[in-house]
Amino acid sequence: MALWGGRFSGETRSEVAKYSESISFDQRLYKHDIMGSIAHVTMLAKQGIIPEASAEAIRTELKNILGRIEKGDFTYDIALEDIHMHIESALIGVLGDEGARVHSGRSRNDQVALDVRLYLRDAASEIIDGIREMQRALVLKASEHPRQIMPGFTHLQHAQVVLFAHHMLAYVEMFDRDAARLADCRKRFNVSPLGSGAIAGSTLALDREFVAELLNFDGVTRNSMDAVADRDFMIEFLSALAIFGVHCSRLSEDLILWCGQEFDFIELDDAFCTGSSLMPQKKNPDVCELTRGKTARFTGALNALLTMCKGLPLTYNRDLQEDKVALFDAIDTAMQILAVYPPMVATMTLKGANMEKAASDPALMATDLAEALVGLGVPFRTAHHRVGSLVKYCKEKGKQLDEISLEEMRITIPEATEEFPRMFDPRASVAKRNLTGGTGFDAVASQLKFWQEKLK
Amino acid sequence: MALWGGRFSGETRSEVAKYSESISFDQRLYKHDIMGSIAHVTMLAKQGIIPEASAEAIRTELKNILGRIEKGDFTYDIALEDIHMHIESALIGVLGDEGARVHSGRSRNDQVALDVRLYLRDAASEIIDGIREMQRALVLKASEHPRQIMPGFTHLQHAQVVLFAHHMLAYVEMFDRDAARLADCRKRFNVSPLGSGAIAGSTLALDREFVAELLNFDGVTRNSMDAVADRDFMIEFLSALAIFGVHCSRLSEDLILWCGQEFDFIELDDAFCTGSSLMPQKKNPDVCELTRGKTARFTGALNALLTMCKGLPLTYNRDLQEDKVALFDAIDTAMQILAVYPPMVATMTLKGANMEKAASDPALMATDLAEALVGLGVPFRTAHHRVGSLVKYCKEKGKQLDEISLEEMRITIPEATEEFPRMFDPRASVAKRNLTGGTGFDAVASQLKFWQEKLK
Amino acid sequence: MALWGGRFSGETRSEVAKYSESISFDQRLYKHDIMGSIAHVTMLAKQGIIPEASAEAIRTELKNILGRIEKGDFTYDIALEDIHMHIESALIGVLGDEGARVHSGRSRNDQVALDVRLYLRDAASEIIDGIREMQRALVLKASEHPRQIMPGFTHLQHAQVVLFAHHMLAYVEMFDRDAARLADCRKRFNVSPLGSGAIAGSTLALDREFVAELLNFDGVTRNSMDAVADRDFMIEFLSALAIFGVHCSRLSEDLILWCGQEFDFIELDDAFCTGSSLMPQKKNPDVCELTRGKTARFTGALNALLTMCKGLPLTYNRDLQEDKVALFDAIDTAMQILAVYPPMVATMTLKGANMEKAASDPALMATDLAEALVGLGVPFRTAHHRVGSLVKYCKEKGKQLDEISLEEMRITIPEATEEFPRMFDPRASVAKRNLTGGTGFDAVASQLKFWQEKLK
Amino acid sequence: MALWGGRFSGETRSEVAKYSESISFDQRLYKHDIMGSIAHVTMLAKQGIIPEASAEAIRTELKNILGRIEKGDFTYDIALEDIHMHIESALIGVLGDEGARVHSGRSRNDQVALDVRLYLRDAASEIIDGIREMQRALVLKASEHPRQIMPGFTHLQHAQVVLFAHHMLAYVEMFDRDAARLADCRKRFNVSPLGSGAIAGSTLALDREFVAELLNFDGVTRNSMDAVADRDFMIEFLSALAIFGVHCSRLSEDLILWCGQEFDFIELDDAFCTGSSLMPQKKNPDVCELTRGKTARFTGALNALLTMCKGLPLTYNRDLQEDKVALFDAIDTAMQILAVYPPMVATMTLKGANMEKAASDPALMATDLAEALVGLGVPFRTAHHRVGSLVKYCKEKGKQLDEISLEEMRITIPEATEEFPRMFDPRASVAKRNLTGGTGFDAVASQLKFWQEKLK
Repeated sequence: MALWGGRFSGETRSEVAKYSESISFDQRLYKHDIMGSIAHVTMLAKQGIIPEASAEAIRTELKNILGRIEKGDFTYDIALEDIHMHIESALIGVLGDEGARVHSGRSRNDQVALDVRLYLRDAASEIIDGIREMQRALVLKASEHPRQIMPGFTHLQHAQVVLFAHHMLAYVEMFDRDAARLADCRKRFNVSPLGSGAIAGSTLALDREFVAELLNFDGVTRNSMDAVADRDFMIEFLSALAIFGVHCSRLSEDLILWCGQEFDFIELDDAFCTGSSLMPQKKNPDVCELTRGKTARFTGALNALLTMCKGLPLTYNRDLQEDKVALFDAIDTAMQILAVYPPMVATMTLKGANMEKAASDPALMATDLAEALVGLGVPFRTAHHRVGSLVKYCKEKGKQLDEISLEEMRITIPEATEEFPRMFDPRASVAKRNLTGGTGFDAVASQLKFWQEKLK
Repeated sequence: MALWGGRFSGETRSEVAKYSESISFDQRLYKHDIMGSIAHVTMLAKQGIIPEASAEAIRTELKNILGRIEKGDFTYDIALEDIHMHIESALIGVLGDEGARVHSGRSRNDQVALDVRLYLRDAASEIIDGIREMQRALVLKASEHPRQIMPGFTHLQHAQVVLFAHHMLAYVEMFDRDAARLADCRKRFNVSPLGSGAIAGSTLALDREFVAELLNFDGVTRNSMDAVADRDFMIEFLSALAIFGVHCSRLSEDLILWCGQEFDFIELDDAFCTGSSLMPQKKNPDVCELTRGKTARFTGALNALLTMCKGLPLTYNRDLQEDKVALFDAIDTAMQILAVYPPMVATMTLKGANMEKAASDPALMATDLAEALVGLGVPFRTAHHRVGSLVKYCKEKGKQLDEISLEEMRITIPEATEEFPRMFDPRASVAKRNLTGGTGFDAVASQLKFWQEKLK
Repeated sequence: MALWGGRFSGETRSEVAKYSESISFDQRLYKHDIMGSIAHVTMLAKQGIIPEASAEAIRTELKNILGRIEKGDFTYDIALEDIHMHIESALIGVLGDEGARVHSGRSRNDQVALDVRLYLRDAASEIIDGIREMQRALVLKASEHPRQIMPGFTHLQHAQVVLFAHHMLAYVEMFDRDAARLADCRKRFNVSPLGSGAIAGSTLALDREFVAELLNFDGVTRNSMDAVADRDFMIEFLSALAIFGVHCSRLSEDLILWCGQEFDFIELDDAFCTGSSLMPQKKNPDVCELTRGKTARFTGALNALLTMCKGLPLTYNRDLQEDKVALFDAIDTAMQILAVYPPMVATMTLKGANMEKAASDPALMATDLAEALVGLGVPFRTAHHRVGSLVKYCKEKGKQLDEISLEEMRITIPEATEEFPRMFDPRASVAKRNLTGGTGFDAVASQLKFWQEKLK
Repeated sequence: MALWGGRFSGETRSEVAKYSESISFDQRLYKHDIMGSIAHVTMLAKQGIIPEASAEAIRTELKNILGRIEKGDFTYDIALEDIHMHIESALIGVLGDEGARVHSGRSRNDQVALDVRLYLRDAASEIIDGIREMQRALVLKASEHPRQIMPGFTHLQHAQVVLFAHHMLAYVEMFDRDAARLADCRKRFNVSPLGSGAIAGSTLALDREFVAELLNFDGVTRNSMDAVADRDFMIEFLSALAIFGVHCSRLSEDLILWCGQEFDFIELDDAFCTGSSLMPQKKNPDVCELTRGKTARFTGALNALLTMCKGLPLTYNRDLQEDKVALFDAIDTAMQILAVYPPMVATMTLKGANMEKAASDPALMATDLAEALVGLGVPFRTAHHRVGSLVKYCKEKGKQLDEISLEEMRITIPEATEEFPRMFDPRASVAKRNLTGGTGFDAVASQLKFWQEKLK
């Protein structure tokens, strides 16, 4: 009979046991559940609620159980529903009455809230570490090619010449905000819910602050009903992952484009690609594609939780058990991406000549002409229009911008000086852009230095 | 080395193999993969592309493999990526060159499209069967209490008296449309993609129509690029499940309300409820809550697929491998709901007296008064206003509508006849509503009969 | 005072009136609301519930109101909440007591359900017509270039040679299923809810079937509670649009790629592009990008409705008023896409030489070699491996597949015949693929013919 | 011709102009656009890029334009696309060449990124202010009824007695985290993107830090490509609103339950309710229902943005123009909720007697008995089981827990002392729960004080 079964006459139907079990997915909380129980009984003994000897016996046996679980020497049974009941039941199996004291002043509601917070604290740290690795790989690749030019794209059209390193560092910025979001989220949920009971707190003289200290929390939750009812920290966590996923999907899109035959800017190492079951010549950027695809799981998980929580009355409702399925899947996905992506970036090879050739399209320097006109006192909008007319003129003549003489240029740009026809050197164009955040050689070198320091 | 590895120098990195494998979730396609391969080689032999003896050997060995998989005597290895490579590899392992002929004129792209369609065809049928069981349970419960009255709610406020059976049959209607949606979806995807190859069809003289016939398809796909690139039938399937989920969530909400202490309209069997780890008196409607929660998985899965497919260029991209994770989870969830819900509905107990008491609130008959006034020639809007004033009058006097005399009633409703004060009998109110689709005893009896026939 | 205000003492607060109004978005239902009311009063008179003269007066005045609204000569006021109250109020304003009869035996619940169904029936037809235009534009463009070859892509890598027309027809297939989904959805919701009242039907002797006939419905709803509570047909409609959106987003992605400098396969007409405020040379494929972006609105709308309906108890809840915001936005978006996309496709210019050049990469014919080996009796998997080795050999030698002699080829493919070095002609490769659904010239010509007939 | 139209031959098609305009929704950015332009030209003049006199003329005219817009004296035209082009065009219309200098060293890409950040900064502040009002209303209501007891619910079943004030304060906690999330988000996006240009920065000697200071930013963005490409701060903003929406939806659900006939715990003021077009007696909690429904818009908007951004290559793509539609709708919705909800909470009336009656169910004190047994040294799990048996015993006897004698109680709880039968007083039960965060009178009083201080 279930540990909670005192008032029940009928047994749980087997399909229902299967339907309502969570042990298949919450068993990963075992370490944090045991950690929480150890702190809890230590406090119970300190407060005289249970004898110190009981606490000691429970702590010892919990550590045994931890060892057994980690060795794979622990039996799971859906009749015991969840990891919490499994561990308590194993404890009582060995210690009898002594073990039966562990749940004093506690409910599964505050227990599960505790375990998930402890678990998420670790997950946040691991993901942040992984993001740092991702940033390091990008910075490394950028630093290997500090002067490699390439076309910068807007609307997937050639826009202006940029440095490859600058493009990589754009992603370093995005991932930095992702890490910051997770840290903010962690800060918010790092308070102990234990002592909130099922809903109303406890009539026993618990010392909540002491437990919080033992478990390295920043404090305790301020309202017992909120503590057992709310899942906002999980949704916030998932939304941080979903945004991280958007960044991963965009980087993947860039790399997929770059290793296609049309762009041909990079080659990925064979170790990160697969072939085709039919077409012998194929080498596909599977990791990038799978990553772009897998980020959809974050969106799915986030949606599942938002939908799940919408319109639930206070406080705990069993719907919330489902929260962990989506949460854990998203965390696993993030960890998997972070396991394959940094080495893939670190080992990819640039096809610098192709990048350079694409960047040498003189149309990419059109903005430079317009800005040079501004330097000569021409109002910008007029300058823009003159250069636009030049582009149109060249298109009609079937010429590139750098194939016409100064005289021809002056048909549409009367103010053009002798320097103008020499403005189509892509490296010179890049060299002029050294504002903070710009793509100039110096600006990017100093950004690189900034990140190398920060990511040490 | 992978079966597609001819052109590769480096080996796939182990993390990448783990990242890109799908065998952990697509192994459930084994039966349909084998069924497809049997049809394919039968056609290859008929067309003279491979020898009949090869086809025969392959068919025999595929059946062996099927037997081994079903007995659990088959080894999975993520290096073999997916179920298709596992089966082909096992085949070649036994048959050598003969087995190596199975993939002639086929790509994994059209193979996986085939397998999923075959699988979904079965899944659709099983879910439709489950939905029929759900409808039967609702009709059964309705038919056990054909004359039980209860308050009908709008805005969760008492609105008018309705029959409990009518309320149950509202869900029967919804589930009926769910089944129809799945059937429409099945009709659309029940065409064979085999012969589309990776993207361009095949140079071999395949007979696509023959394969389609062997596999009971309604026809073949008309465009090879569409056949390997598109996943719209999966999204349609998931959206049908998401709508089914909305219906389940609403039924669950109703039942959760009804078994709370405030409503107290029903009691669920102990076999479908659980208790509390802290509070000894609790008996919770977990199955309903979990169902309401689990329906969020459908929304999550639907979103994941929509996001995944958005903006992908033609044709197949590896992102699409992820489609099955969401799809299979949703199908499993639907099947689980359908395994627990019908017996729960069938075993729930009505607390008829409580329902009746709640339905006896005379305010529920206010509309009857207004419609009676229409019968006397009073314009409806005027009638509505008069009865509204009566409600206000009674509220001010602290009386129920049936506690005032005809004289008092005439203060706000001058047209009131002697019949009016007698219009507060809830059964009489129900009895008047026998339009098609109404809640009258006769109307509901005939609806019941309709469904009992249809669901036989 | 509101028409329903009989029982109220306090007035609605102005912020609440603003919060709860729907006239700002449901005014577009005016035509269908009036159409429904005309049918309703015609039936009321036929049944003797209101005098024929009243019905006649109401019909006449409703037509006046329709005229006024269409001329812009109608005042909206959020105090009147929604289009239904606006029209009833205007009617009563002119006709007094006669107008006050219009709402007999009707509730806003069944009225709004009716109006939305009538509206959606028209919207479905318009969208289906628009989809046919889209298909026609694609078929037209395909038929203008029936023999244009291009690389077919999987994983955004060159896979095999295909016809441009075949690529276009892949989308024609997708859009065809979109139209079929909308038609199935329409079939399901094309039943009249009128007579369901607020929840329980009516005590008046309405003739529901007569109204349904007047309004061209296929029948009447079978359960009054379902009829006012459920919104599944709207969700189904939105999911059909979301899938249509996925197809539009994929076509847009293809076109965006094709008009970038790297692919350079097409040029869009100036009329469908815009420039840059900074960079004078830019010409951006805005319509494609916006379409790819706007399809996210469908996903957003679908989610909003799924979330909104989740867990609502029966029957009508005011939450459901919000359904129309998402629904109408999605319909408008679909109509806008369908207004710009067909002419953009019809006016785009192919850069056939670039397509052809990209398709001439001999690696694209690798599969042909493997299939030729199958024709010589080599098991496919062996054939695939041999050609893979050839690809690797050529890569190491820095040669293209068509740059090596038969002798060299035989190093990795011993079975190669004299025909093999001649298999790298892309047109010859395409010509071999004439299975149903294949990309061969004949196969595509017959597909083109099929669609030209069907879309006439 | 468009300001960017120099290179174009054809005109934009009218449907395309309509399709691609954003003026219909981005006109609300006018104030922030002008503020940004004023800072920009001030810097341009300081750097000697444009004459000081030009800057002065531009500033003056921009202020004129601001005044005209606010007075409604400004004409919008979709041919001018967006608010940025409208204002620049109006400027040039008046100032000619002087006005044409405003866009020097700027692109619409960095301009729109700037404007949205400035706008969102204000929106965040307004929403945070609104959330504080919401908290104040809840604290006020709680403080008016500091000792009102009610049943606390888990699984929508009576769980334990709690204070109404405690229930209210649970929401105060949730809303507090919502405000903190918005503040964290604001901190992250409060850096100036101006000077990032279209993608690559600028060749002009801009002073980005000076502009940032003029506009009260905390700094400047560090990478120009990131600055124009990324929208993560909008998604973060929307996810904060979506979580806020979950909280609003749950509060709404509670209130809807409480004002139904079954619970009957509160009455909402008439000013926040509406009636029925058919049923004269109805008074519906529309604001709560609409809020529950409207929160689905947040989920929809969040999804739209996540889907929109997924898989876009760097940097700016026109898809992103659509971001504002979802963002602004969500902000408006949040502001509307915050306009109606606080006064509704502040004016609602408690039906204290009904709450108290529901809270007096002795089963709610079952946990107290179990915890009392723990106090006597009984292991908790044993204690829980004993009380469970007592509940079952009472149910079988048809008695309430407080209707049996000590002797009877000892059948299932041998350790029961004389105090036990006196433990069913709900106020005494509450009084014992004074741990931090508990529902005890003192604990709640100190929480109330904490919030009153904090929200002053």
